[in-house]
Amino acid sequence: MTENNNQVLSKYNQLKSEVRRSVQSTAVADLIYEIFIESKSYLESKTMIQLVSRVVGKDYFAFQDGNKKTRAISNVLFTDLETVDVFWNKFNEGTLERTDSDLIQKALYTQAMSFCASIDLIKTRDQKTPGTFFEYFIAYFFSKIIDCEPERSIPILSMDDDQMRLPTDFIYNLGRNRQKFHMPIKTSSRERAIMLWAHQKLLDGVYGNGRFMGTPVLLAETKLNQRNLEVVEICLPDQWQLYQMYISKLKRVYYLDLPNGYQQLNNLFPPIAVKPFSDFFFEWESLIPI
Amino acid sequence: MTENNNQVLSKYNQLKSEVRRSVQSTAVADLIYEIFIESKSYLESKTMIQLVSRVVGKDYFAFQDGNKKTRAISNVLFTDLETVDVFWNKFNEGTLERTDSDLIQKALYTQAMSFCASIDLIKTRDQKTPGTFFEYFIAYFFSKIIDCEPERSIPILSMDDDQMRLPTDFIYNLGRNRQKFHMPIKTSSRERAIMLWAHQKLLDGVYGNGRFMGTPVLLAETKLNQRNLEVVEICLPDQWQLYQMYISKLKRVYYLDLPNGYQQLNNLFPPIAVKPFSDFFFEWESLIPI
Repeated sequence: MTENNNQVLSKYNQLKSEVRRSVQSTAVADLIYEIFIESKSYLESKTMIQLVSRVVGKDYFAFQDGNKKTRAISNVLFTDLETVDVFWNKFNEGTLERTDSDLIQKALYTQAMSFCASIDLIKTRDQKTPGTFFEYFIAYFFSKIIDCEPERSIPILSMDDDQMRLPTDFIYNLGRNRQKFHMPIKTSSRERAIMLWAHQKLLDGVYGNGRFMGTPVLLAETKLNQRNLEVVEICLPDQWQLYQMYISKLKRVYYLDLPNGYQQLNNLFPPIAVKPFSDFFFEWESLIPI
Repeated sequence: MTENNNQVLSKYNQLKSEVRRSVQSTAVADLIYEIFIESKSYLESKTMIQLVSRVVGKDYFAFQDGNKKTRAISNVLFTDLETVDVFWNKFNEGTLERTDSDLIQKALYTQAMSFCASIDLIKTRDQKTPGTFFEYFIAYFFSKIIDCEPERSIPILSMDDDQMRLPTDFIYNLGRNRQKFHMPIKTSSRERAIMLWAHQKLLDGVYGNGRFMGTPVLLAETKLNQRNLEVVEICLPDQWQLYQMYISKLKRVYYLDLPNGYQQLNNLFPPIAVKPFSDFFFEWESLIPI
């Protein structure tokens, strides 16, 4: 392992201990940025190979190191250091506007993907590290935007035992009499998407319909065939519609790389609002009726 | 790859094409038995290592081939060829009785585990092959016992489109006016258990509560730490109770290696009937009110 690999992982380990104190601290922001710089520097020495995209209108590449390849990375969304810096400046100054949606989406995608791609090469078949990083990464921005620290478990009533706690995805309690956010954060959903609706159903059951608003955030649904270098998007839109009708209602599904196959769900019945995550920066207040 | 490996995989490929014709044919039964014989012969040349069991009252071992180890195998449940032969003879003659529960459980566990363990050594990190085999393996016995061919998708009504079909776990339609079985078959559930209840909820929604009876069948919930050779059971009984209360009702959860952590759920509220799969052989008719 080179020194750079160690830097990526050692910064990630610092992040893991820092988020235990607070998800939205300046220390977390600094580590997210430093992890991006280290990942970027690590990837710069690797070969870039263009992939065979079977996704209409989207091109993908991967970094390669010997036999190892990273996951598929969007040519258009993966951007440069300058763009990421502009994003951070505007984010810290609070000057991001609707017209910056593209900037936000690209800067977030690039930072998340740089770390995930580095881990794809540094480790072998490690899905946990990218998944955990992506959780902290998105939770930082979500928490900062709505100025609220998330919780990872909720109390459950029982007639028999003392209060139990259920471990959950990120829960944001905005205060008395206000709707709360239920935010699963995943790098992809694939054939496990039903879990997003099932966890929402559980919260609806325990706390009543509508108390929690489900707004999962996902990275992408691309899948790279390592042999022929083909990239496809794994989408099950018909099944999502059944989940939305028969299990529970999700308010939004946010993506950094929004899959073609889910885009259409915005305009079908039952409507499922599948949006770029950048939309959250500007619409979050309007989502909450009270 | 030795000739034996090839035999295990080549028989498995034959099984895959045979089940497309019928899950409960004599050809399928023959292949299940032949796969066991080939797997057994493959494993006989491997080293057996005793594992450090952290599961109260249960001991586990693994087969080893160079650096590769199989999953954890129960010392007590893994039995010999003679026991498997006695089981098959009685099963084919229809002479299995309640007092044979132990025989059934051991013979099924040994056959399922012999194939899964072989694949653990032949392939690398392949969960799909053991998972698919286990589906066909259990589906064969289930189908044969209730004399019914399973379906893998169900029709969904839509006001807008022609009838859609939803891909599902195994569905057994016993005929007009009778309850139908909804049977997911998995080698383990781990943190994905909520999917069992969510799929049941979906069927309840589309076809009405109670039309389908959820009776998943699982192999085990053991997890082997490859470094220190410790075996634990991953059980989340509190969460299962919440799923049973707030998502849907499962009628049974059957196991070949019933985890300690779920045994207790039979006697708590809400009751979840977690049983050895051998029970199904004798109780299935009493499960169906009509």
